[in-house]
Formats: sequence, C-alpha cells, structure tokens
Amino acid sequence: MKALVYHGPGEKAWEDVPDARVQEATDVVVKVDTTTICGTDLHILQGDVAAVTDGRILGHEAVGTVTATGEAVKGFAVGDRVLVPAVTKCGRCAYCQRNMPSHCQTVGGIGWIFGHLIDGTQAEYVRVPYADTSLYKVPEDVTNEQAIFLADSLPTGYEVGVLAGQVRPGDTVAVVGSGAVGLAAILTTGLWGASRVIALDSNKFRLEKAREFGATDTVEAGPGAVGEVLALTDGLGVDVAIEAVGYPETLLTAAAVVRPGGHVANIGVHGAPVALPMQDLWIHNVTLTMGLVDTVSIPTLLKMVASGRIPAEKMGTHRFTFAGIDEAYEVFHNAADHQALKVVITPG
Amino acid sequence: MKALVYHGPGEKAWEDVPDARVQEATDVVVKVDTTTICGTDLHILQGDVAAVTDGRILGHEAVGTVTATGEAVKGFAVGDRVLVPAVTKCGRCAYCQRNMPSHCQTVGGIGWIFGHLIDGTQAEYVRVPYADTSLYKVPEDVTNEQAIFLADSLPTGYEVGVLAGQVRPGDTVAVVGSGAVGLAAILTTGLWGASRVIALDSNKFRLEKAREFGATDTVEAGPGAVGEVLALTDGLGVDVAIEAVGYPETLLTAAAVVRPGGHVANIGVHGAPVALPMQDLWIHNVTLTMGLVDTVSIPTLLKMVASGRIPAEKMGTHRFTFAGIDEAYEVFHNAADHQALKVVITPG
Repeated sequence: MKALVYHGPGEKAWEDVPDARVQEATDVVVKVDTTTICGTDLHILQGDVAAVTDGRILGHEAVGTVTATGEAVKGFAVGDRVLVPAVTKCGRCAYCQRNMPSHCQTVGGIGWIFGHLIDGTQAEYVRVPYADTSLYKVPEDVTNEQAIFLADSLPTGYEVGVLAGQVRPGDTVAVVGSGAVGLAAILTTGLWGASRVIALDSNKFRLEKAREFGATDTVEAGPGAVGEVLALTDGLGVDVAIEAVGYPETLLTAAAVVRPGGHVANIGVHGAPVALPMQDLWIHNVTLTMGLVDTVSIPTLLKMVASGRIPAEKMGTHRFTFAGIDEAYEVFHNAADHQALKVVITPG
Repeated sequence: MKALVYHGPGEKAWEDVPDARVQEATDVVVKVDTTTICGTDLHILQGDVAAVTDGRILGHEAVGTVTATGEAVKGFAVGDRVLVPAVTKCGRCAYCQRNMPSHCQTVGGIGWIFGHLIDGTQAEYVRVPYADTSLYKVPEDVTNEQAIFLADSLPTGYEVGVLAGQVRPGDTVAVVGSGAVGLAAILTTGLWGASRVIALDSNKFRLEKAREFGATDTVEAGPGAVGEVLALTDGLGVDVAIEAVGYPETLLTAAAVVRPGGHVANIGVHGAPVALPMQDLWIHNVTLTMGLVDTVSIPTLLKMVASGRIPAEKMGTHRFTFAGIDEAYEVFHNAADHQALKVVITPG
C-alpha cells in the first residue's frame, strides 16, 4: 500500500510501505476514504515531537471502511463505515474508565498514538488497535466530509474549549484565535447557550469565518484588543476565554479578558513556558484549564451534525487526492494565504 | 476607643481613635472580644498593598458582641455574639447572588474591605457594614478561640484549597506549604474523604503539626521533594495539589506533583509572575484554580467545629492582649522561630 511517511524534520514522502494488517485480536484494518491534516502534523514535520521517528506514517484522523477484523472484535464488521478518532482507548485502564482516554495508560500514557507512536491515517489503509472501544460507526446521514472533522478538531474545540471552560447559558465567551480549532469552539459554544461570542484573530478572513460560524462580535488581535473586549462587556470581562493558538501572548490575552470568577480554557499546544501574572490573577477566582482532547464527545457531535445543528462540512475549504498530498500540506501550512481552514484528502 | 493604626510601611501604633459608630442603616458596631493577625497584615506592613493608607485601622478577623445596630438591621441585636468574617457582602450584587462575595461589586469589587478599604478589627470596636448579609452568629458550643479562625484562615484553606481543588473520596492530596492556611487545608481535606494527605514544608515543626492535623505523609521541601511525592503515589502524582505559600517555586512544585487530569489549587498570595511550564502542562488535562476566599463556607465550618470534627482551636498557639499586640505581631512575623501557627488576641 501507499502512505505518507515521515523521514525526519522537513522530510516526508508518499511511498510504498508494507500493508496494514491485523496484529492483535482487538485490531481492525480500515481502508481510508477521507483524511485531513492537523496543526500537530506540521509540528511533527518541524521536528517538535521527538517521539515521532523516521519511518512513521503520519496522520491521526480518518473516515473509512473496515476491511479486516481481529477475532476479539465484536462491535465492528467488514464493510462498516467508521470514524477513526485521534485518540485510541483501551477502555479498561483507570483513565479510560473515568472517560479520560487522552491519558490511556495501556497505549503509552497518552491516547494520541496514530502518526505518533504507531503508524497513522495518511495512508491507503490503517491498523486500528482496541477497535471496539476506539472506533465510531458513522450514521447514514453524516457524510465523510462532515465526519472527518469529528476525528480531532471539532471535539478539541468543544471538549478542551467549551466543556472545560464550562460555558453556561447566558455567558459571554471570547475565543482567542479563530483558526480551525478556534472556529470549532465558536461553532459549538452556541450549544451551551452563550449569549455573546467574541472572536479574536489577526486575520480578516478568519474573522469573517468566525461570524459565519456563530461569533456575534469580532476583534482584531493587537495591542488594543483587550480593551476592546472589556468595552464590549461591562468592563469586567468575559465569563469564559478560550485560547486556541498556543503562544504566550494569546494565553495572556485570554487571562486579561476574563472576569473575576471566570474560566480560561487553554486549547493551544505550547512550546515554551508562559509567565502568568499570578500577582494580578490570584485574587480573581480564575480557573485555568488545559489538555489534550479525549474525543469522548464524538457521539454527541455526530448527533448534532446529523440533526443539522453543527455544519461540520464548513471546516473543509480545500480538497485534494492522495496524489496531491504534498500540495495539501503546503496549503494547510500557509492556510491564511490560501484562505484555508481544513483540507479534505481522499484516495481520488 | 483604642485601635492598631497603620502609618505607612513598617509603622503601626496602638493608639486613641474616634469611636466606631453606626454610619449606615445596614451597619452594626461590634465590640471585639477576640482577634488575630493574618499573613496579609504582614504584607500590608511591608507596604505591599497600596490601597491601605496612613490612618487605616488594621485587621480583618474578629469574634465579638454587637453593641449597636442600624435601623435596617433585622438579623442581629445588641448582645449577640458574632463572627466578623474577612469578607463583607452586600447580598444583592451579581457576585453576591452567585455566592462569590469575594468580588462584591457594591463594596468596591473586592469583598475584603476590613483593614484594607475601611477600618478593621484590631481595635476595641469595629463598624460592620451590611451586617445582615455579612455576620454570623456563633453557636453556644463554639468558643471564641475556635470561631476566630473561621473568619479567614480555615475557610481559605477549605474553599480556595479543598473545594476549588475538588477533593473527592479516595483522592491523594499534596499540600505544598504547611503554615496556618496549608494546615487549614489539611484539617478540612479529610471532610471530603481524601485517602492520603502529603504535607510539604521546609520547617520540621510545621510538618509535625501537619501530621497532628491529619497529614498521612510528610515531605521536606527541597530539590528531591517532587520525586519523593511521585514515589509516594504510583509515579503519576497526586489527584489534587494545594499550593499554600505564594512563591513561584511552590506553585511549580504543585504543578510538578499533580497527575494528568488532576487539580492544582493555588491559595498563595503572589507578588510576581510565575513561568508556568505550559509546554509540559498543556497535554496533562490539569486544572489550575486560584482566588480570594468567599467565607461562604462559614456555616458549614461552624457546624463541623461544634460537632468536634474540626479542632479549630489547634490553630491558636500563642495568646496576647491588646496591650501586647506589638509582641503578637513579632511572634507571628517570626512564626517558625517561635513554633507559632496563629496568635489569639483579646482585650485582656
């Protein structure tokens, strides 16, 4: 089969590799019908993720069709259309049993293993371990081009942003950074009854998208942004500030716009320490959350997509086939220039 | 009347001042029968709290007797024995109505006003605004020397540490810093069923006290402390880490000993930014809380003291009269040298 293989920082190739096959009784093999690229894949290609070594097949998001099942698999059969989520869960360790498979102890202490600790989904076929507890069947009325965004970006915005930030009816929410994951948070904040959603970004295309995805206000990132957000509220700030970038400045912006008693939900993947102004924050009864997605909200999100309440397909702005995967990476890497959010990749 | 008056950094005097009197219909005047000193008073005397100006009477904790009531006061009468808590609440602003009077908008956006924005409790008498919503009657079976620690230190350890940290039955809890507030957290963690409580401090007397107050394990603060805590757990860390000091190193220790999915509850009053290692923490699903006490747990704590489950009197290690208030400050300021936790001050 063919797959996109990582060969060290800056190096990748769509090349022949051994076929994916069932190795454990709890595995299935899935033919990849749709995949996409995540910001994390770009981090890997920059050499930021030391655990990813030469020869690893990239990618951790797929929708596909089951082509083989291990003998212990009970819930899936050949031919099933399935969503392969970013997180793999054994279902029996203490973390899986408390619904936090992002720290599944069985698969290595971190549930994100595809394209990281095992071969990934940017390939013609992918081996899926612990299939019974990890895969989701895709309902008939959800398309592949909707479901693919439920593998990672939508649950990330929803779980690590909206749910961890404890958005409640009537809340005012600021979303700092309106890239794909920030937009996912904007798209799902309405589910919890936010009365006002303020999107921040430095890119005008993204701010336009933010309005289309449900933001009631937009603020251009920059030195005046904090003051503008405070002016839009009652001077005290927002109930929930969702950080969806992963830089010190954006986390500090989120902390500066949250009101006393509010929540800062950090989604961003950080590469450096952040000098948090604890001398100001300690008295504010602020809660700061952070984390890797668990993808346990996928059943909820599938229902919301099926019912038309989440137009997940809007996340996909550019389409490619496996043959054009290098171009897909280029477009996603320079997303702002291309007015791109997420790319959709199919066998073609 | 006489009171302890602040006269700028390092300057205070027990001196004659105008009598406390009812100024608003919602005020009462309380004769102070017992008061104490808080770490915050020491910060004020170092000039760290700019809002406290020359002429302000210090102190924000008292147990006393009502001697005069404003005409709108319905819940208290002359002669009532009352607890004057650190936080004043109007009862009608949005923050008071959601049970977060630490940010009462009516009294200045911060509920801690005694010895800060208005005259305090280290005096023969104190004027108490919004008495109906702020004061608590002291049950007969709770002594003044127990109740005084419910004005601030016990609710602080309980609310900002144990409740904000969401200690649950079976949890392992680390308390970083075993001074008065850390000990208050240790004393109340058992109420929520912690299975193991690990106290950290650099002072041996405090670690002894920590065991007396309910710690199951003690770890001497220092370079090896994090490793020791991890070795005491399953290598992943504690469910809840309570920070009760207020320095960057102690908050970083708390963040280093918490397991994925755990809570860091910061109680400490910080004076500088903290370089939080977000590059390690973002993936850990850690929740960091911080804040000023609301003192809304006082009714709960009064019942627990009355029933004997919280031996609040153990917090008081040294006794003084108003005449000896300077010595009380000296002992509290050098608490470790004097093997002191909290001081009890009475009219004498």
